[in-house]
Amino acid sequence: MIVSPSDLPHKDLYNLLLNSVAPRPIAWVSTVSASGHLNLAPFSFFNVASVNPPLLGFSPGLRASGRDQTRGEAKDTLRNIRETKEFVVNVVTYHLAEAMNLTSGEYDASVNEFEVAKLTPEASALVDPPRVAESPVSFECKLHQILDFSTAPTSGSLVLGQIVSIHVNDANLKDGRLDRNSLDLIGRMGGLQYTRTTQRFEMVRPKAG
Amino acid sequence: MIVSPSDLPHKDLYNLLLNSVAPRPIAWVSTVSASGHLNLAPFSFFNVASVNPPLLGFSPGLRASGRDQTRGEAKDTLRNIRETKEFVVNVVTYHLAEAMNLTSGEYDASVNEFEVAKLTPEASALVDPPRVAESPVSFECKLHQILDFSTAPTSGSLVLGQIVSIHVNDANLKDGRLDRNSLDLIGRMGGLQYTRTTQRFEMVRPKAG
Repeated sequence: MIVSPSDLPHKDLYNLLLNSVAPRPIAWVSTVSASGHLNLAPFSFFNVASVNPPLLGFSPGLRASGRDQTRGEAKDTLRNIRETKEFVVNVVTYHLAEAMNLTSGEYDASVNEFEVAKLTPEASALVDPPRVAESPVSFECKLHQILDFSTAPTSGSLVLGQIVSIHVNDANLKDGRLDRNSLDLIGRMGGLQYTRTTQRFEMVRPKAG
Repeated sequence: MIVSPSDLPHKDLYNLLLNSVAPRPIAWVSTVSASGHLNLAPFSFFNVASVNPPLLGFSPGLRASGRDQTRGEAKDTLRNIRETKEFVVNVVTYHLAEAMNLTSGEYDASVNEFEVAKLTPEASALVDPPRVAESPVSFECKLHQILDFSTAPTSGSLVLGQIVSIHVNDANLKDGRLDRNSLDLIGRMGGLQYTRTTQRFEMVRPKAG
């Protein structure tokens, strides 16, 4: 089958992308509004955008598939970042899956998802939004830029943040470095699906001739 | 542990990001140089950047950790895209893992990785670079923009491509749509690790009050 994206209803295109660009890492993003309200929400259109400078990028347009376009956490997160230029990206382990899922509801902007999910906001070193104390790794970010791709109501934006400080829980350190095998990260698939990352295998890079 | 990215050697920062921003989807990117050389290479700093307009983003700065900075597939891919403004993103299944890994070597720009990995270049509908016939889903992209974050030799770039055509293998269709359960996608972890995506679970989104 060959299709043009413009021939697909938005929801079908969205689902096709969700199902085939996978597994996706999850950015669990904490922000604070200008008026001081805490917010926490997960986004899986997320990855490293650059190592030098160290930039993380995520697209908060994730919930734009047939839902109410005028509100929702995505909008709260994006609005907060526009207002205060700071955010924290926390990683999500299998142990935190249920709590992360609780923060994905379309709550009112006044709702503090840390309370909804019984999570501990821990003060950050260099930015105002707190990190999730229960998350093993958190990246404090200052806004680098926001790319707004169009002015349509369902249009996507890409938020790029520069990492200014990194927190790694001591329990996840080995010889002073992050022990990758101590993390039990989960990834986002399509539909309601997530994947664990315990079925790993290794491949050695080929030497070029 | 709290660290500033600027206090970490490039390689340590790179590894910390690789290990904690995971699992990452893999963009297996086919390009053609201005002089007509085919290229194919995998990148895992990759995700959907926007659904409307439909944009995929990947960062070809992936191989910048202590390797030769002056050449390599990342540079070939990026140079080809700068030259011809087109690329195809193919997805990677477990079945294709070894072939994908073969295309990750730092070959000369003249090397055709389709031949190295015994893959079939299949003509695209709207762009010049061929897709990987063996991949179940391919996204034909026209360059939207390249963000170059600095001029340092190890600096990152982010390539944004607009999807103009999508190919889904007929074997992966069910009732005219992509059957997500027919895909056996793999994700990239830190070090030499990859993960399968067969250990899935579902969580229903909470209803907000």
